[in-house]
Amino acid sequence: MEIDSQKIKVIGFDADDTLWINETYFRDAEEEFATLLEGYETKNKIDQELFKMEIKNLSLYGYGVKGFVLSMVECALDLSNNEISSEKITAILNIGKEMISRPVELLDDVEMVLKELSKKYRLIVLTKGDLLDQERKIEQSNLAEYFHHVEVLSDKKESNYKNLLEHLEIDVNEFLMIGNSLKSDVLPLVNIGAKAIHIPFHTTWEHEMVDDNDAKGKEYKTINGLKDLLNFL
Amino acid sequence: MEIDSQKIKVIGFDADDTLWINETYFRDAEEEFATLLEGYETKNKIDQELFKMEIKNLSLYGYGVKGFVLSMVECALDLSNNEISSEKITAILNIGKEMISRPVELLDDVEMVLKELSKKYRLIVLTKGDLLDQERKIEQSNLAEYFHHVEVLSDKKESNYKNLLEHLEIDVNEFLMIGNSLKSDVLPLVNIGAKAIHIPFHTTWEHEMVDDNDAKGKEYKTINGLKDLLNFL
Repeated sequence: MEIDSQKIKVIGFDADDTLWINETYFRDAEEEFATLLEGYETKNKIDQELFKMEIKNLSLYGYGVKGFVLSMVECALDLSNNEISSEKITAILNIGKEMISRPVELLDDVEMVLKELSKKYRLIVLTKGDLLDQERKIEQSNLAEYFHHVEVLSDKKESNYKNLLEHLEIDVNEFLMIGNSLKSDVLPLVNIGAKAIHIPFHTTWEHEMVDDNDAKGKEYKTINGLKDLLNFL
Repeated sequence: MEIDSQKIKVIGFDADDTLWINETYFRDAEEEFATLLEGYETKNKIDQELFKMEIKNLSLYGYGVKGFVLSMVECALDLSNNEISSEKITAILNIGKEMISRPVELLDDVEMVLKELSKKYRLIVLTKGDLLDQERKIEQSNLAEYFHHVEVLSDKKESNYKNLLEHLEIDVNEFLMIGNSLKSDVLPLVNIGAKAIHIPFHTTWEHEMVDDNDAKGKEYKTINGLKDLLNFL
Protein backbone atom coordinates (compact mmCIF):
# COMPACT_ATOMS: atom_id res chain seq x y z
CA MET A 1 0.00 0.00 0.00
CA GLU A 2 1.24 3.48 -0.80
CA ILE A 3 0.81 6.24 1.75
CA ASP A 4 0.09 9.61 0.12
CA SER A 5 2.12 11.77 2.48
CA GLN A 6 0.49 14.91 1.08
CA LYS A 7 -2.91 13.83 2.31
CA ILE A 8 -1.86 12.93 5.84
CA LYS A 9 -2.21 15.70 8.42
CA VAL A 10 -2.27 13.85 11.73
CA ILE A 11 -0.18 10.86 12.77
CA GLY A 12 -1.18 8.74 15.75
CA PHE A 13 1.40 6.69 17.57
CA ASP A 14 0.75 3.72 19.77
CA ALA A 15 3.07 3.92 22.79
CA ASP A 16 3.82 0.52 24.38
CA ASP A 17 6.23 -1.39 22.12
CA THR A 18 6.03 1.33 19.48
CA LEU A 19 7.74 4.21 21.31
CA TRP A 20 9.09 2.29 24.28
CA ILE A 21 9.55 -1.25 25.58
CA ASN A 22 6.62 -2.80 27.40
CA GLU A 23 5.74 -6.36 26.44
CA THR A 24 9.22 -7.56 27.34
CA TYR A 25 8.50 -6.62 30.97
CA PHE A 26 5.33 -8.68 30.96
CA ARG A 27 7.28 -11.65 29.57
CA ASP A 28 9.88 -11.17 32.33
CA ALA A 29 7.09 -11.03 34.91
CA GLU A 30 5.58 -14.25 33.57
CA GLU A 31 8.97 -15.91 33.91
CA GLU A 32 9.22 -14.81 37.53
CA PHE A 33 5.67 -15.92 38.16
CA ALA A 34 6.37 -19.37 36.69
CA THR A 35 9.45 -19.67 38.90
CA LEU A 36 7.37 -18.83 41.98
CA LEU A 37 4.84 -21.52 41.03
CA GLU A 38 7.48 -24.15 40.24
CA GLY A 39 6.51 -27.48 41.72
CA TYR A 40 2.76 -26.93 41.38
CA GLU A 41 2.56 -27.21 37.59
CA THR A 42 4.76 -27.32 34.51
CA LYS A 43 5.99 -24.00 33.15
CA ASN A 44 3.87 -24.41 30.08
CA LYS A 45 0.70 -25.05 32.07
CA ILE A 46 1.42 -22.08 34.35
CA ASP A 47 1.81 -19.79 31.32
CA GLN A 48 -1.42 -21.06 29.83
CA GLU A 49 -3.42 -20.75 33.02
CA LEU A 50 -2.18 -17.23 33.68
CA PHE A 51 -3.18 -16.21 30.17
CA LYS A 52 -6.63 -17.76 30.66
CA MET A 53 -7.03 -15.92 33.95
CA GLU A 54 -6.09 -12.60 32.35
CA ILE A 55 -8.62 -13.08 29.59
CA LYS A 56 -11.30 -14.16 32.07
CA ASN A 57 -10.71 -10.99 34.09
CA LEU A 58 -10.16 -8.63 31.16
CA SER A 59 -13.69 -7.26 31.04
CA LEU A 60 -13.50 -6.46 34.78
CA TYR A 61 -9.93 -5.27 35.12
CA GLY A 62 -9.09 -3.93 31.66
CA TYR A 63 -5.50 -3.61 30.41
CA GLY A 64 -2.52 -2.63 32.50
CA VAL A 65 -0.24 -3.83 35.26
CA LYS A 66 -2.69 -3.70 38.21
CA GLY A 67 -5.17 -6.07 36.58
CA PHE A 68 -2.27 -8.30 35.57
CA VAL A 69 -1.07 -8.51 39.18
CA LEU A 70 -4.56 -9.30 40.47
CA SER A 71 -4.80 -12.08 37.87
CA MET A 72 -1.39 -13.44 38.92
CA VAL A 73 -2.51 -13.60 42.56
CA GLU A 74 -5.75 -15.35 41.64
CA CYS A 75 -3.95 -17.76 39.34
CA ALA A 76 -1.36 -18.59 42.02
CA LEU A 77 -4.13 -19.42 44.51
CA ASP A 78 -5.85 -21.59 41.90
CA LEU A 79 -2.81 -23.46 40.61
CA SER A 80 -1.49 -24.20 44.08
CA ASN A 81 -4.87 -25.33 45.39
CA ASN A 82 -4.62 -22.53 47.94
CA GLU A 83 -1.25 -23.79 49.15
CA ILE A 84 0.77 -20.86 47.88
CA SER A 85 2.70 -19.16 50.69
CA SER A 86 2.13 -15.62 51.86
CA GLU A 87 5.73 -14.85 50.95
CA LYS A 88 5.02 -15.79 47.36
CA ILE A 89 1.90 -13.59 47.27
CA THR A 90 4.11 -10.75 48.48
CA ALA A 91 6.61 -11.60 45.75
CA ILE A 92 3.82 -11.34 43.16
CA LEU A 93 2.79 -7.91 44.47
CA ASN A 94 6.42 -6.85 44.21
CA ILE A 95 6.66 -7.99 40.59
CA GLY A 96 3.85 -5.54 39.87
CA LYS A 97 5.42 -2.70 41.80
CA GLU A 98 8.69 -3.18 39.94
CA MET A 99 6.90 -3.17 36.60
CA ILE A 100 5.15 0.09 37.46
CA SER A 101 8.35 1.73 38.73
CA ARG A 102 10.56 0.60 35.88
CA PRO A 103 12.15 3.50 34.00
CA VAL A 104 10.98 4.07 30.44
CA GLU A 105 13.28 2.61 27.78
CA LEU A 106 12.73 4.25 24.41
CA LEU A 107 13.01 2.19 21.26
CA ASP A 108 15.61 3.10 18.62
CA ASP A 109 15.46 6.47 16.87
CA VAL A 110 12.20 7.51 18.58
CA GLU A 111 13.17 11.03 19.47
CA MET A 112 14.88 11.77 16.16
CA VAL A 113 11.89 10.50 14.17
CA LEU A 114 9.31 12.38 16.25
CA LYS A 115 11.33 15.57 15.99
CA GLU A 116 11.40 15.31 12.20
CA LEU A 117 7.77 14.34 11.78
CA SER A 118 6.52 16.99 14.20
CA LYS A 119 7.75 19.63 11.73
CA LYS A 120 5.28 18.51 9.08
CA TYR A 121 2.46 16.72 10.90
CA ARG A 122 0.36 16.98 14.02
CA LEU A 123 1.40 14.04 16.21
CA ILE A 124 -0.77 12.38 18.84
CA VAL A 125 -0.37 9.38 21.14
CA LEU A 126 -3.13 6.80 21.34
CA THR A 127 -2.47 4.19 23.95
CA LYS A 128 -4.50 1.82 26.03
CA GLY A 129 -3.88 0.62 29.55
CA ASP A 130 -3.76 2.28 32.89
CA LEU A 131 -4.22 6.06 32.83
CA LEU A 132 -1.71 6.87 35.57
CA ASP A 133 0.94 4.47 34.22
CA GLN A 134 0.69 5.85 30.71
CA GLU A 135 0.81 9.47 31.89
CA ARG A 136 3.87 8.66 33.94
CA LYS A 137 5.57 7.01 30.98
CA ILE A 138 4.83 9.96 28.69
CA GLU A 139 6.28 12.31 31.26
CA GLN A 140 9.38 10.20 31.88
CA SER A 141 9.96 9.71 28.17
CA ASN A 142 10.54 13.44 27.65
CA LEU A 143 8.58 13.10 24.43
CA ALA A 144 5.55 15.11 25.52
CA GLU A 145 6.70 18.22 23.65
CA TYR A 146 6.30 16.47 20.28
CA PHE A 147 2.65 15.60 20.81
CA HIS A 148 -0.40 17.79 20.42
CA HIS A 149 -2.51 15.35 22.32
CA VAL A 150 -2.21 12.18 24.38
CA GLU A 151 -5.22 9.94 24.72
CA VAL A 152 -5.39 6.87 26.93
CA LEU A 153 -8.19 4.61 25.72
CA SER A 154 -9.79 1.79 27.67
CA ASP A 155 -9.71 -0.28 24.47
CA LYS A 156 -8.65 0.09 20.84
CA LYS A 157 -11.58 -1.07 18.82
CA GLU A 158 -13.03 0.63 15.74
CA SER A 159 -15.60 2.47 17.85
CA ASN A 160 -12.94 3.84 20.21
CA TYR A 161 -10.99 5.25 17.26
CA LYS A 162 -14.09 6.62 15.53
CA ASN A 163 -15.23 8.45 18.67
CA LEU A 164 -11.80 9.84 19.33
CA LEU A 165 -11.18 11.12 15.79
CA GLU A 166 -14.59 12.75 15.86
CA HIS A 167 -13.90 14.30 19.24
CA LEU A 168 -10.52 15.64 18.09
CA GLU A 169 -12.07 16.77 14.79
CA ILE A 170 -9.63 14.73 12.72
CA ASP A 171 -10.72 13.68 9.24
CA VAL A 172 -10.30 9.92 8.94
CA ASN A 173 -8.79 10.38 5.45
CA GLU A 174 -6.06 12.57 6.84
CA PHE A 175 -5.12 10.22 9.68
CA LEU A 176 -2.29 7.72 9.80
CA MET A 177 -1.82 5.36 12.75
CA ILE A 178 1.47 3.68 13.60
CA GLY A 179 1.85 0.79 15.98
CA ASN A 180 3.12 -2.67 16.73
CA SER A 181 -0.20 -4.45 17.13
CA LEU A 182 -2.08 -5.49 13.99
CA LYS A 183 -5.15 -6.10 16.14
CA SER A 184 -5.18 -2.81 18.05
CA ASP A 185 -3.20 -0.30 16.00
CA VAL A 186 -3.65 -1.34 12.38
CA LEU A 187 -6.77 -3.30 11.43
CA PRO A 188 -9.39 -1.15 13.25
CA LEU A 189 -7.98 1.94 11.46
CA VAL A 190 -7.94 0.31 8.04
CA ASN A 191 -11.52 -0.81 8.69
CA ILE A 192 -12.72 2.74 9.36
CA GLY A 193 -10.93 4.17 6.31
CA ALA A 194 -7.75 5.58 7.86
CA LYS A 195 -4.19 4.64 6.94
CA ALA A 196 -2.01 2.46 9.14
CA ILE A 197 1.57 1.32 9.36
CA HIS A 198 2.64 -1.79 11.23
CA ILE A 199 6.02 -1.89 12.96
CA PRO A 200 6.30 -5.36 14.48
CA PHE A 201 7.92 -5.66 17.90
CA HIS A 202 9.83 -8.86 18.60
CA THR A 203 7.34 -9.92 21.27
CA THR A 204 3.54 -9.84 21.00
CA TRP A 205 1.06 -10.76 23.71
CA GLU A 206 -1.07 -13.71 22.65
CA HIS A 207 -4.21 -11.62 23.12
CA GLU A 208 -2.94 -9.17 20.50
CA MET A 209 -2.40 -11.86 17.87
CA VAL A 210 -4.73 -11.86 14.87
CA ASP A 211 -5.85 -14.65 12.69
CA ASP A 212 -4.26 -14.52 9.24
CA ASN A 213 -7.73 -14.29 7.74
CA ASP A 214 -8.52 -11.10 9.63
CA ALA A 215 -5.55 -9.36 8.11
CA LYS A 216 -5.91 -10.84 4.61
CA GLY A 217 -6.65 -8.28 1.92
CA LYS A 218 -6.35 -5.35 4.38
CA GLU A 219 -4.31 -2.46 3.06
CA TYR A 220 -1.56 -1.44 5.40
CA LYS A 221 2.18 -1.03 5.20
CA THR A 222 4.74 -2.89 7.27
CA ILE A 223 8.14 -1.45 8.06
CA ASN A 224 11.00 -2.62 10.25
CA GLY A 225 11.55 0.38 12.45
CA LEU A 226 10.44 3.93 13.14
CA LYS A 227 13.33 5.36 11.15
CA ASP A 228 11.91 3.90 7.93
CA LEU A 229 8.98 6.31 8.30
CA LEU A 230 11.24 9.12 7.15
CA ASN A 231 11.66 7.45 3.74
CA PHE A 232 8.15 8.35 2.70
CA LEU A 233 6.68 10.84 5.19
CA MET B 1 -20.56 33.57 47.18
CA GLU B 2 -22.93 34.47 44.39
CA ILE B 3 -22.74 32.62 41.10
CA ASP B 4 -23.47 34.84 38.12
CA SER B 5 -25.42 32.35 36.06
CA GLN B 6 -25.20 34.60 33.00
CA LYS B 7 -21.44 34.28 32.92
CA ILE B 8 -21.28 30.50 33.23
CA LYS B 9 -21.15 28.57 29.96
CA VAL B 10 -19.76 25.19 30.95
CA ILE B 11 -20.56 23.15 34.05
CA GLY B 12 -18.28 20.33 35.14
CA PHE B 13 -19.62 17.54 37.31
CA ASP B 14 -17.61 15.23 39.46
CA ALA B 15 -19.08 11.72 39.17
CA ASP B 16 -18.39 9.51 42.21
CA ASP B 17 -20.60 10.66 45.12
CA THR B 18 -21.86 13.60 43.07
CA LEU B 19 -23.84 11.79 40.37
CA TRP B 20 -23.82 8.31 41.87
CA ILE B 21 -22.90 6.44 45.03
CA ASN B 22 -19.29 5.34 45.38
CA GLU B 23 -17.66 6.00 48.74
CA THR B 24 -20.30 3.93 50.51
CA TYR B 25 -19.04 0.86 48.65
CA PHE B 26 -15.50 1.50 49.82
CA ARG B 27 -16.78 1.80 53.41
CA ASP B 28 -18.65 -1.51 52.97
CA ALA B 29 -15.50 -3.10 51.59
CA GLU B 30 -13.47 -1.85 54.54
CA GLU B 31 -16.02 -3.41 56.88
CA GLU B 32 -15.72 -6.75 55.09
CA PHE B 33 -11.94 -6.45 55.15
CA ALA B 34 -11.94 -5.79 58.90
CA THR B 35 -14.16 -8.81 59.44
CA LEU B 36 -11.74 -11.00 57.47
CA LEU B 37 -8.84 -9.76 59.60
CA GLU B 38 -10.69 -10.16 62.90
CA GLY B 39 -8.45 -11.76 65.48
CA TYR B 40 -5.24 -10.24 64.13
CA GLU B 41 -5.91 -6.65 65.18
CA THR B 42 -8.66 -4.39 66.50
CA LYS B 43 -11.09 -3.00 63.95
CA ASN B 44 -9.75 0.48 64.52
CA LYS B 45 -6.16 -0.56 63.91
CA ILE B 46 -7.14 -2.50 60.77
CA ASP B 47 -8.91 0.58 59.37
CA GLN B 48 -5.90 2.76 60.12
CA GLU B 49 -3.37 0.36 58.63
CA LEU B 50 -5.39 -0.11 55.46
CA PHE B 51 -5.61 3.65 55.03
CA LYS B 52 -1.86 3.97 55.55
CA MET B 53 -1.22 1.26 52.99
CA GLU B 54 -3.47 2.97 50.44
CA ILE B 55 -1.64 6.26 50.87
CA LYS B 56 1.74 4.54 50.70
CA ASN B 57 0.76 2.92 47.40
CA LEU B 58 -1.16 5.87 45.94
CA SER B 59 1.67 7.22 43.81
CA LEU B 60 2.17 3.78 42.28
CA TYR B 61 -1.41 2.56 41.94
CA GLY B 62 -3.42 5.77 41.66
CA TYR B 63 -7.13 5.94 42.49
CA GLY B 64 -9.67 3.23 41.85
CA VAL B 65 -10.74 -0.23 42.92
CA LYS B 66 -7.81 -2.26 41.56
CA GLY B 67 -5.21 -0.35 43.56
CA PHE B 68 -7.48 -0.57 46.60
CA VAL B 69 -7.64 -4.37 46.27
CA LEU B 70 -3.88 -4.67 45.88
CA SER B 71 -3.46 -2.56 49.03
CA MET B 72 -5.96 -4.73 50.91
CA VAL B 73 -4.00 -7.88 49.97
CA GLU B 74 -0.70 -6.30 51.06
CA CYS B 75 -2.23 -5.02 54.28
CA ALA B 76 -3.72 -8.43 55.09
CA LEU B 77 -0.32 -10.08 54.67
CA ASP B 78 1.29 -7.42 56.87
CA LEU B 79 -1.29 -7.36 59.66
CA SER B 80 -1.46 -11.15 59.91
CA ASN B 81 2.31 -11.56 59.86
CA ASN B 82 1.88 -13.63 56.71
CA GLU B 83 -0.56 -15.95 58.46
CA ILE B 84 -3.60 -14.91 56.47
CA SER B 85 -5.21 -17.89 54.71
CA SER B 86 -5.45 -18.31 50.96
CA GLU B 87 -9.22 -18.40 51.32
CA LYS B 88 -9.16 -14.92 52.82
CA ILE B 89 -6.95 -13.61 50.00
CA THR B 90 -9.53 -14.99 47.59
CA ALA B 91 -12.26 -13.27 49.60
CA ILE B 92 -10.38 -9.96 49.25
CA LEU B 93 -10.11 -10.40 45.47
CA ASN B 94 -13.84 -11.08 45.41
CA ILE B 95 -14.61 -7.90 47.36
CA GLY B 96 -12.90 -6.02 44.52
CA LYS B 97 -14.73 -7.90 41.78
CA GLU B 98 -18.05 -7.17 43.45
CA MET B 99 -17.21 -3.49 43.74
CA ILE B 100 -16.35 -3.30 40.05
CA SER B 101 -19.49 -5.21 39.01
CA ARG B 102 -21.89 -3.33 41.24
CA PRO B 103 -24.67 -1.59 39.31
CA VAL B 104 -24.61 2.19 39.27
CA GLU B 105 -26.96 3.82 41.81
CA LEU B 106 -27.73 7.40 40.87
CA LEU B 107 -28.14 10.01 43.59
CA ASP B 108 -31.45 11.88 43.95
CA ASP B 109 -32.71 14.07 41.12
CA VAL B 110 -29.60 13.56 38.97
CA GLU B 111 -31.31 12.95 35.68
CA MET B 112 -33.92 15.69 36.14
CA VAL B 113 -31.27 18.26 37.04
CA LEU B 114 -28.93 17.32 34.18
CA LYS B 115 -31.81 17.43 31.72
CA GLU B 116 -32.71 20.97 32.82
CA LEU B 117 -29.17 22.28 32.94
CA SER B 118 -28.23 20.75 29.59
CA LYS B 119 -30.74 23.10 27.95
CA LYS B 120 -28.76 26.16 29.00
CA TYR B 121 -25.18 25.01 29.59
CA ARG B 122 -22.56 22.72 28.14
CA LEU B 123 -22.13 19.92 30.67
CA ILE B 124 -19.00 17.82 31.12
CA VAL B 125 -17.93 15.09 33.54
CA LEU B 126 -14.56 15.33 35.25
CA THR B 127 -13.79 12.30 37.29
CA LYS B 128 -10.70 10.57 38.59
CA GLY B 129 -10.05 6.90 39.10
CA ASP B 130 -9.88 3.95 36.81
CA LEU B 131 -10.58 4.68 33.15
CA LEU B 132 -12.48 1.48 32.39
CA ASP B 133 -14.54 1.63 35.60
CA GLN B 134 -15.56 5.21 35.01
CA GLU B 135 -16.45 4.60 31.37
CA ARG B 136 -18.55 1.64 32.42
CA LYS B 137 -20.36 3.71 35.05
CA ILE B 138 -21.09 6.53 32.59
CA GLU B 139 -22.51 4.01 30.16
CA GLN B 140 -24.60 2.20 32.77
CA SER B 141 -25.89 5.46 34.20
CA ASN B 142 -27.66 6.33 30.93
CA LEU B 143 -26.51 9.90 31.50
CA ALA B 144 -24.03 10.06 28.60
CA GLU B 145 -26.48 11.95 26.38
CA TYR B 146 -26.40 14.99 28.68
CA PHE B 147 -22.64 15.43 28.49
CA HIS B 148 -20.57 17.02 25.77
CA HIS B 149 -17.42 15.48 27.12
CA VAL B 150 -16.27 12.98 29.72
CA GLU B 151 -12.74 13.21 31.03
CA VAL B 152 -11.15 10.73 33.39
CA LEU B 153 -8.18 12.36 35.13
CA SER B 154 -5.41 10.58 36.98
CA ASP B 155 -5.65 13.27 39.65
CA LYS B 156 -7.59 16.45 40.35
CA LYS B 157 -5.03 19.05 41.18
CA GLU B 158 -4.94 22.62 39.90
CA SER B 159 -2.59 21.66 37.06
CA ASN B 160 -4.89 18.85 35.90
CA TYR B 161 -7.81 21.27 35.69
CA LYS B 162 -5.78 24.00 34.02
CA ASN B 163 -4.50 21.65 31.32
CA LEU B 164 -7.93 20.23 30.71
CA LEU B 165 -9.74 23.57 30.44
CA GLU B 166 -7.05 24.75 28.05
CA HIS B 167 -7.33 21.59 26.00
CA LEU B 168 -11.14 21.87 25.83
CA GLU B 169 -10.83 25.61 25.11
CA ILE B 170 -12.97 26.55 28.09
CA ASP B 171 -12.50 30.01 29.60
CA VAL B 172 -11.84 29.60 33.31
CA ASN B 173 -14.20 32.53 34.03
CA GLU B 174 -17.05 30.73 32.32
CA PHE B 175 -16.55 27.44 34.13
CA LEU B 176 -18.39 26.12 37.17
CA MET B 177 -17.41 22.85 38.85
CA ILE B 178 -19.76 20.85 41.06
CA GLY B 179 -18.68 18.05 43.35
CA ASN B 180 -18.65 16.46 46.77
CA SER B 181 -14.94 16.82 47.52
CA LEU B 182 -13.65 20.17 48.74
CA LYS B 183 -10.13 18.96 48.10
CA SER B 184 -10.61 17.64 44.55
CA ASP B 185 -13.68 19.37 43.12
CA VAL B 186 -13.83 22.77 44.79
CA LEU B 187 -10.59 24.29 46.09
CA PRO B 188 -8.38 23.64 43.03
CA LEU B 189 -11.02 25.37 40.87
CA VAL B 190 -11.38 28.35 43.16
CA ASN B 191 -7.59 28.63 43.18
CA ILE B 192 -7.38 28.87 39.40
CA GLY B 193 -10.19 31.42 39.16
CA ALA B 194 -13.17 29.26 38.27
CA LYS B 195 -16.40 28.94 40.24
CA ALA B 196 -17.23 25.89 42.34
CA ILE B 197 -20.16 24.47 44.24
CA HIS B 198 -19.78 21.94 47.02
CA ILE B 199 -22.46 19.31 47.56
CA PRO B 200 -21.32 17.28 50.57
CA PHE B 201 -21.92 13.54 50.50
CA HIS B 202 -22.57 11.86 53.84
CA THR B 203 -19.32 9.90 53.62
CA THR B 204 -15.91 11.28 52.70
CA TRP B 205 -12.70 9.31 52.36
CA GLU B 206 -10.11 10.50 54.86
CA HIS B 207 -7.70 11.29 52.01
CA GLU B 208 -10.23 13.76 50.58
CA MET B 209 -10.56 15.69 53.82
CA VAL B 210 -9.13 19.19 53.92
CA ASP B 211 -7.77 21.17 56.75
CA ASP B 212 -10.09 23.99 57.81
CA ASN B 213 -7.30 26.45 57.07
CA ASP B 214 -7.09 25.36 53.44
CA ALA B 215 -10.73 26.19 52.87
CA LYS B 216 -10.79 29.38 54.95
CA GLY B 217 -11.52 32.50 52.95
CA LYS B 218 -12.06 30.54 49.72
CA GLU B 219 -15.11 31.60 47.78
CA TYR B 220 -17.40 28.73 46.96
CA LYS B 221 -21.03 27.89 47.54
CA THR B 222 -22.33 24.91 49.47
CA ILE B 223 -25.73 23.36 48.75
CA ASN B 224 -27.50 20.30 50.09
CA GLY B 225 -28.35 18.50 46.90
CA LEU B 226 -28.23 18.69 43.12
CA LYS B 227 -31.81 19.93 42.92
CA ASP B 228 -30.81 23.17 44.67
CA LEU B 229 -28.74 24.04 41.58
CA LEU B 230 -31.96 24.88 39.75
CA ASN B 231 -32.65 27.73 42.18
CA PHE B 232 -29.92 29.87 40.71
CA LEU B 233 -28.71 28.31 37.45
